[in-house]
Amino acid sequence: MKRLLIANRGEIAVRIIRAARDLGIETVAVASDADGKAKHAQLADSVIPIGPSQASKSYLVADSIVAAAREAGADAVHPGYGFLSERADFAAAVADAGLTFVGPDAAVIEQMGDKVRARQVAAAAGVPTVPGTPDAIDDVAVAVRAAAEVGYPVMLKAAAGGGGRGIRVVADETELVAAFPAASREAASAFGDGRMYLERFVRSARHVEVQVLGDGDRAVHLFERECSLQRRRQKVIEEATSPGIDDRTRAAMTDAAVRLCDQVGYRSAGTCEFLVDDDTGEFFFIEMNTRIQVEHPVTELITGVDLVAQQLRIAAGDPLSLEQADIRGSGHAIEVRICAEDPERGFLPSPGPIGHLELPGGPWVRMDTWLTPGGQVSPFYDSLMAKLIVWGEDRAAAVQRAKRALGEFVVEGLPSTTTLLAEILDQPWFTSAQFDTGTLEAWLEQRATSTPTGATT
Amino acid sequence: MKRLLIANRGEIAVRIIRAARDLGIETVAVASDADGKAKHAQLADSVIPIGPSQASKSYLVADSIVAAAREAGADAVHPGYGFLSERADFAAAVADAGLTFVGPDAAVIEQMGDKVRARQVAAAAGVPTVPGTPDAIDDVAVAVRAAAEVGYPVMLKAAAGGGGRGIRVVADETELVAAFPAASREAASAFGDGRMYLERFVRSARHVEVQVLGDGDRAVHLFERECSLQRRRQKVIEEATSPGIDDRTRAAMTDAAVRLCDQVGYRSAGTCEFLVDDDTGEFFFIEMNTRIQVEHPVTELITGVDLVAQQLRIAAGDPLSLEQADIRGSGHAIEVRICAEDPERGFLPSPGPIGHLELPGGPWVRMDTWLTPGGQVSPFYDSLMAKLIVWGEDRAAAVQRAKRALGEFVVEGLPSTTTLLAEILDQPWFTSAQFDTGTLEAWLEQRATSTPTGATT
Repeated sequence: MKRLLIANRGEIAVRIIRAARDLGIETVAVASDADGKAKHAQLADSVIPIGPSQASKSYLVADSIVAAAREAGADAVHPGYGFLSERADFAAAVADAGLTFVGPDAAVIEQMGDKVRARQVAAAAGVPTVPGTPDAIDDVAVAVRAAAEVGYPVMLKAAAGGGGRGIRVVADETELVAAFPAASREAASAFGDGRMYLERFVRSARHVEVQVLGDGDRAVHLFERECSLQRRRQKVIEEATSPGIDDRTRAAMTDAAVRLCDQVGYRSAGTCEFLVDDDTGEFFFIEMNTRIQVEHPVTELITGVDLVAQQLRIAAGDPLSLEQADIRGSGHAIEVRICAEDPERGFLPSPGPIGHLELPGGPWVRMDTWLTPGGQVSPFYDSLMAKLIVWGEDRAAAVQRAKRALGEFVVEGLPSTTTLLAEILDQPWFTSAQFDTGTLEAWLEQRATSTPTGATT
Repeated sequence: MKRLLIANRGEIAVRIIRAARDLGIETVAVASDADGKAKHAQLADSVIPIGPSQASKSYLVADSIVAAAREAGADAVHPGYGFLSERADFAAAVADAGLTFVGPDAAVIEQMGDKVRARQVAAAAGVPTVPGTPDAIDDVAVAVRAAAEVGYPVMLKAAAGGGGRGIRVVADETELVAAFPAASREAASAFGDGRMYLERFVRSARHVEVQVLGDGDRAVHLFERECSLQRRRQKVIEEATSPGIDDRTRAAMTDAAVRLCDQVGYRSAGTCEFLVDDDTGEFFFIEMNTRIQVEHPVTELITGVDLVAQQLRIAAGDPLSLEQADIRGSGHAIEVRICAEDPERGFLPSPGPIGHLELPGGPWVRMDTWLTPGGQVSPFYDSLMAKLIVWGEDRAAAVQRAKRALGEFVVEGLPSTTTLLAEILDQPWFTSAQFDTGTLEAWLEQRATSTPTGATT
């Protein structure tokens, strides 16, 4: 691998450029009209414009990206996360153009991207899944019979869905019958596939995910991440390792993730997501993400393994250089996602020019960001400004360091979630790690009713 | 310890504020007139002005600092490095004011600051020193007899000196007789003490130093740093661990450093500096620095131990929390010192306003700096703008990452050593780690004669 095209923008494009450069690989950025002066375009060795600012006309156009890679003489393409990263057709198009796709084969992306097939893989690997329907359902009558077997309340999910979109919880048959047609229509329009499936709804659960690396022949895990703190199914704060599981669960869960990878001959970095039932301690496989995750740095900080560099090496054909016994976790890492959103106005996105900027720094503080003085938060893309990731010798030290670093961050001119994140880190349910996937939203709702809308913080 | 006054400025003041905040300790900065808007003054919980911009009228005035600490209600004082950090009288004045000095007792500072007494301590602890005179010499005739015993060439050093000042290498008796009186007079005027001592001059040597932590009862080491790359006896690039010593030497040297600490009941962080004879592999104790070092971060990055936090905890009376067996080194770390100096104009200092600023970032890149957009490099203080410290799984990975990160650093409006440092990292003698304390200066001289003065780079 000599020249890598990065089919993404923002902090993950910057991250990938850094990893490539650390390995001596040339980098080619792509940039929409809005991103001509963006940090990823500045940092790369060269930049190819790929069209209008709307992602649907630039970063999401597979043909333009493949054409750009050919034009640049790139021999590989890294998709990052989001955008085209889990589109099997894109991976196939890259391969068909004679280029290396940095990720698993298109067939594996397709297999794991289909939730029903992924559940079948898990079953074959002896990995527990949430009790639910074994096959995709396209008929409400079948759904009603299946739900009776699974037991209410059930979750209704798009078979082809992802990122939490199109998920509904229904409490009984009446709700199911009412919800099914609309959910199926939505799924058809969002994913081109109207099939649904049903799962038992776990009332209080943690979201814990295992980082894996495979080279096609064997796989290793790099421990787990705790990602329960979510708002609208988007992760807000992530940690490694999880403060919510014990060593026995950790061992069983990481073992299950490796079995899953072995089952499909997984190649590249990936994440196996699990739901941990707070009441029973059981864990269930939910889905596998066949790409690098936003929250990958917390794993990097506890293991010292550069996951993006590993992706690149594996894609270049190197066998996995890591033995499971050599991968050790040390200390604790926390990531907070700083977004250009105003939490006092319903998380309204706050695009605009970046004023005076001071980034946090010092020991064990990492700021993965595309923010640059004189830059611009664009209205066209997601609102993630920066990921602040800190490491500490234990969880308490990491929490304290995260608060300190958040206090150092200054970005004038733009409302952001910075002070809200610091507030979360101070909550007793956070410091004691007593939370589940519903805790953050419940707290935010309570906070919204006790703080007048529009109040300054 | 509730409130800490930081008796320093620049990056080390910022570093200490961060450590204190990570431990929940309030911080009080001191600022000269030039530093009212400096980063350390911005970051601290409060700031006390301590006088004119010249350090001799502000940061070096022990009484003003102690008065500021009292005024602020501080209960402890951290001296940083340089300025008052190794002045026993300052440590005593802090203690006399009823405040905690973050460092060893005044008596230990005095003992280790006197090179002759430090050599005696080493001898008592069975730690080898460079063959030389056992006592301080104030008479040229005694010096001549001693030099004949030690063997020419010898180094002539001020007994009370430090930082490489006042050191002369003499090749024979004629040179010694000529040099002694002037050297002694210089020492008397610089340090208030004209006594000298002699040491064997080692032609090719590495400078390797061991980081120690002691609580008065016991001490541990945190491996060594390689600091051979110097210009005018100022370190330019430092690494941990040293690529120039083998495991047997490492074990013997770190053991010697711990014995030295035990000998004086050392309390706080400290550094035992050794000279390693490239020809024989022997190592000799040179001196002990009874403070935090500029290059401490490379040790932090390989061990995960926050050395400044450890200093604060020990000063607060906590027993050492680290067991030697728990301190493990992982990977390799490199620090480069980025200075506001123009290497193409004889390293002329380049004070002035800071223009557009972009700091390097991403995984395993740490930038310890006081640089802030809209700030100013002052002509009153040393020219250190930033320390870039990187970690890699091995030395080659760390070197590559350091080059990548240097390439990301932008500070417009000021000449700096950034590109020179990147050039050094590319030299075969650097990548192969084949260098001694003379290598960098020899290379710089050669480079100066082959590059026209004033050439742009």
